[in-house]
Amino acid sequence: MSLALSLGRRGMGNCWPNPAVGCVIVRDGRIIGRGWTQPGGRPHAEPQALAQAGELARGATVYVSLEPCSHTGKTPPCTQALIAAGVARVVAAISDCDPRVSGRGFQMLRDAGIEVETGVLADEAARDHAGFFLRTEQGRPFVTLKLASSFDGRIATGSGKSKWITGPEARRKVHVMRSNHDAVLVGAGTARADDPSLTVRDLGIDRQPVRIVTSRHLDLPLLSQLARTTRDVPLWLCHGAGVDPERVRAWEGIGAKLLPCALHGVQLDPADVLRQLGAAGLTRIFCEGGSALAASLLAFDLVDELIGFTAGLGIGAEGLPSIGALGVGRLEEAPRFKLIETTQIGADIMHRWARRQI
Amino acid sequence: MSLALSLGRRGMGNCWPNPAVGCVIVRDGRIIGRGWTQPGGRPHAEPQALAQAGELARGATVYVSLEPCSHTGKTPPCTQALIAAGVARVVAAISDCDPRVSGRGFQMLRDAGIEVETGVLADEAARDHAGFFLRTEQGRPFVTLKLASSFDGRIATGSGKSKWITGPEARRKVHVMRSNHDAVLVGAGTARADDPSLTVRDLGIDRQPVRIVTSRHLDLPLLSQLARTTRDVPLWLCHGAGVDPERVRAWEGIGAKLLPCALHGVQLDPADVLRQLGAAGLTRIFCEGGSALAASLLAFDLVDELIGFTAGLGIGAEGLPSIGALGVGRLEEAPRFKLIETTQIGADIMHRWARRQI
Repeated sequence: MSLALSLGRRGMGNCWPNPAVGCVIVRDGRIIGRGWTQPGGRPHAEPQALAQAGELARGATVYVSLEPCSHTGKTPPCTQALIAAGVARVVAAISDCDPRVSGRGFQMLRDAGIEVETGVLADEAARDHAGFFLRTEQGRPFVTLKLASSFDGRIATGSGKSKWITGPEARRKVHVMRSNHDAVLVGAGTARADDPSLTVRDLGIDRQPVRIVTSRHLDLPLLSQLARTTRDVPLWLCHGAGVDPERVRAWEGIGAKLLPCALHGVQLDPADVLRQLGAAGLTRIFCEGGSALAASLLAFDLVDELIGFTAGLGIGAEGLPSIGALGVGRLEEAPRFKLIETTQIGADIMHRWARRQI
Repeated sequence: MSLALSLGRRGMGNCWPNPAVGCVIVRDGRIIGRGWTQPGGRPHAEPQALAQAGELARGATVYVSLEPCSHTGKTPPCTQALIAAGVARVVAAISDCDPRVSGRGFQMLRDAGIEVETGVLADEAARDHAGFFLRTEQGRPFVTLKLASSFDGRIATGSGKSKWITGPEARRKVHVMRSNHDAVLVGAGTARADDPSLTVRDLGIDRQPVRIVTSRHLDLPLLSQLARTTRDVPLWLCHGAGVDPERVRAWEGIGAKLLPCALHGVQLDPADVLRQLGAAGLTRIFCEGGSALAASLLAFDLVDELIGFTAGLGIGAEGLPSIGALGVGRLEEAPRFKLIETTQIGADIMHRWARRQI
């Protein structure tokens, strides 16, 4: 199952809106088939693994990181393929929360005389599929918030200098993280200040995550790395109501996708932004700040995982804070996270924290 | 030697102005004597270990974490004791930088026909004796700066709430750290805001580190934990010139030691503060903030080790920064540190960084 989970992760960021599933088929102690959800979400993991196993699948055991689907979508249901192949036993990590599947996949397999076991490495599978589950259940994607700062929590000097606080190893790690998310998200301030391209570089991947910028007034510069590359890598812009129609036309003209979102007070409502992104199919989003967007997501309790990169330098109080104003008076009101791990990355440290409720 | 270094560390914070030395005597593969610098700095490690070994010391090998002293101070020189005991061989980690000793200790031993080896685990010994060496060579103690903050680098909410950002395990670790330093240092702002006692608690130790507060105007409240306990635990106050003589009398009256220090502009000159503390005998200082004092020490490049405790909560931009204004414009000007380690402590992480030059 550990291998099935690991294979499943290969699809992360690559197969939305589908879950990134892994599948291993074993017969007489030998692995005869391996599969994972392919780019774009199809084929699913099980048919891939079955195709490898061929006739040997008859009587074999199938390990799969999520309950096999029981409904006909763009592909025939995987349960049917497993039954047709004559497998003897299916071990699943966790059941699907999709109401079209939940428990029905297992039932169909059992009805066909296949032995079914579930709950193996369920916690790990729940983490891997958290984005898919969140979107199915709450309509929003999983949100990873990354903050790369000095050891006093500053993301730039007072005059806006931020290149580079962390070292090349940490920045490379960020590119890996971008690549296993469906989309990369930044606020308008960061887009204006850094003129980033937000692409995954130097990793030899050919499918780029969607790039998203939130901009209440859609007042982003058209002369920018983002604007220049909309034909090559998707760019989505979340904006508020009543923006200048000229701007809408200009951005649509160069190929950006526009998502009008609701406001909360004078700012974009982060919950609605995520709803729109969920409705558009995204399951995992990697947010890279800046301070205002980070604060907004944290204040609305919409951050599922927090990843800090801390460098060994002090910038001081004039520097730009990693998180904007949160309105926290008493410490009990501060959003709290649970440590997953801390480790050295090059000259910096990386620390990952999970939302308490997960 | 590893054991000698480890024994030496038992004296850390306890034997200033003397170095915390460890000594192990071995004969025929058996340990026959162990010693370390005792509270107050005497007896030294070598006579302690020799006393344990007794007559067996004749012909034995002595491992010692620092070159044995060759001058008569408040105790007779250790080299003489080693020669008198008839040891065959002395292995030292590092030579003493004290001009009264440097190399002379080894020479005296060699002159007496004792085989001498040095440089064994020298890097480790250099770190352990860094405070003693710094004081001897530059006249100032080693400075450890501790910052305990939220993951966005805040040490309190905007309204000053800081209890508790980190968990009980991290706070206990801070007490252990206090105990192996000669003194604990905070700025006047922290002393006023937190009314701390700055003592080591719940560790069963009977010798407390000196408590030091820097206060330009000596305008600290006399109704405070610090003032109430000056008879039990030493309290030193570093202040500027021209303070109200009433205040000086009041603090001296309750037993505090006053150290007038030079000014740099309108603030206390941190280099002179450390010079005064070095002259008073301190070799290792544990600074616990606040932001202004941390910034002042960092800006003057006077922080030798930086220890961060980071908790899994976000406080936001209204919170108190861990480091005050540093005047850093370009990132190249920011003080940089080299990672020693990062580890989990309870629900928090601890990360230790060393000054680049060490």
